Amino acid sequence: MVQMINHMVMKMTIETYTLLESYMLSCMEDSAHDSAHVYRVLYNALEIAETESAVDGDVLIGACLLHDIGRKEQFQDPNVCHAAVGAEKARAFLTAHGFDELYADRVAHCIRTHRYRKQSPPQSIEAKILFDADKLDAAGATGIARTLIYKGTVGDPLYTLAPNGSVSDGANDTTPSFFQEYKYKLESIYTHFYTRRGAELARERQAAAVTFYESLYDEVSAAYRNGKAALECFGMI
Amino acid sequence: MVQMINHMVMKMTIETYTLLESYMLSCMEDSAHDSAHVYRVLYNALEIAETESAVDGDVLIGACLLHDIGRKEQFQDPNVCHAAVGAEKARAFLTAHGFDELYADRVAHCIRTHRYRKQSPPQSIEAKILFDADKLDAAGATGIARTLIYKGTVGDPLYTLAPNGSVSDGANDTTPSFFQEYKYKLESIYTHFYTRRGAELARERQAAAVTFYESLYDEVSAAYRNGKAALECFGMI
Repeated sequence: MVQMINHMVMKMTIETYTLLESYMLSCMEDSAHDSAHVYRVLYNALEIAETESAVDGDVLIGACLLHDIGRKEQFQDPNVCHAAVGAEKARAFLTAHGFDELYADRVAHCIRTHRYRKQSPPQSIEAKILFDADKLDAAGATGIARTLIYKGTVGDPLYTLAPNGSVSDGANDTTPSFFQEYKYKLESIYTHFYTRRGAELARERQAAAVTFYESLYDEVSAAYRNGKAALECFGMI
Repeated sequence: MVQMINHMVMKMTIETYTLLESYMLSCMEDSAHDSAHVYRVLYNALEIAETESAVDGDVLIGACLLHDIGRKEQFQDPNVCHAAVGAEKARAFLTAHGFDELYADRVAHCIRTHRYRKQSPPQSIEAKILFDADKLDAAGATGIARTLIYKGTVGDPLYTLAPNGSVSDGANDTTPSFFQEYKYKLESIYTHFYTRRGAELARERQAAAVTFYESLYDEVSAAYRNGKAALECFGMI
């Protein structure tokens, strides 16, 4: 049955959805964080698709479910690009399971271009929606929370100290920390969206991220400033 | 030399401060997060002490530096209380290094009572200040950031789903997650302070934590609500 809802054409059956979902789950190294991200990206994409026209829902849903299946390979070897590996894994899985080559190609295109890389921007509307839906999960409070969880996983600190002992705001840091990641990546993602609805949703979430970063910086930098002044006063440093 | 600054009496030398600091660093399992917490607690305590009277700075600084030296033991065996173990480790270290027994006792009292436990509340002013300085590091954006980093370390998710598939707000959860920890612990710490300045600093930070939790809950719950409605509409779930 072909359904058309909000300009999105869908032929996918629940069996196909479940097949792709199961393959996604089998590829996840850390199911709690990674699969929750995949579902949020799918849900974001479906919301963005509502205000776009001529979206192929089968391509979009397939691409969203499978977009991060190359993560494990990149984690094992940082020189590997999870988008490139994921695209080829998706293509191989789809053709092996009887999907036609055009469908596999279109899903693979979305996955290959979902990562921010100037040399391979998303071309199809489904690829642009996946790109925006994935970036949206790095915006707002969600982006802050995911980054902090990740920093805990790899053992990076919240901040590093400048040579004078004050808390660095992250802007010119080369050592990994949450503040460095915020300044290097999270702060500037709000301008890199392809769809109107994606950009709008990101802007709605921006204040939550900015407020959190500023509050955290104010709290810790004030503590170091006051504490170090007191210790100096007592001759301890 | 005895110094008295802002009602705080201090005899400690820089050599003693460095000895205690070095012992603290040698006890830290995860130096990046744990030692940064110890310094913030020390700085918070020095700020709180400014508005209290008759504070023994030697006891306060010693207790702050050594308050979490029992963390490794609790991590290895969750039945061990890091406050109780830390108090005895501090007492043993101090007496072995020539500090008098009264000083070791007073530092040990602060460390033993810094954890929120109804049966052993802090009695001395230094113990009350340490208690508040430690709780203050679980308030505001700092408390949110530390909790998320910790959840990443142990592999807990941001949230769990209710039986109907919606995002649970954490209030009645029994499965560990960031939302569960927020509702179980972080949300209610603002009323458990012994000093006026500690309570004031905590209240100043409260809005940042509440806003972050609410923003994150709104972002993820809206994504699940809209996304699941769209998938139901397409017959995928």
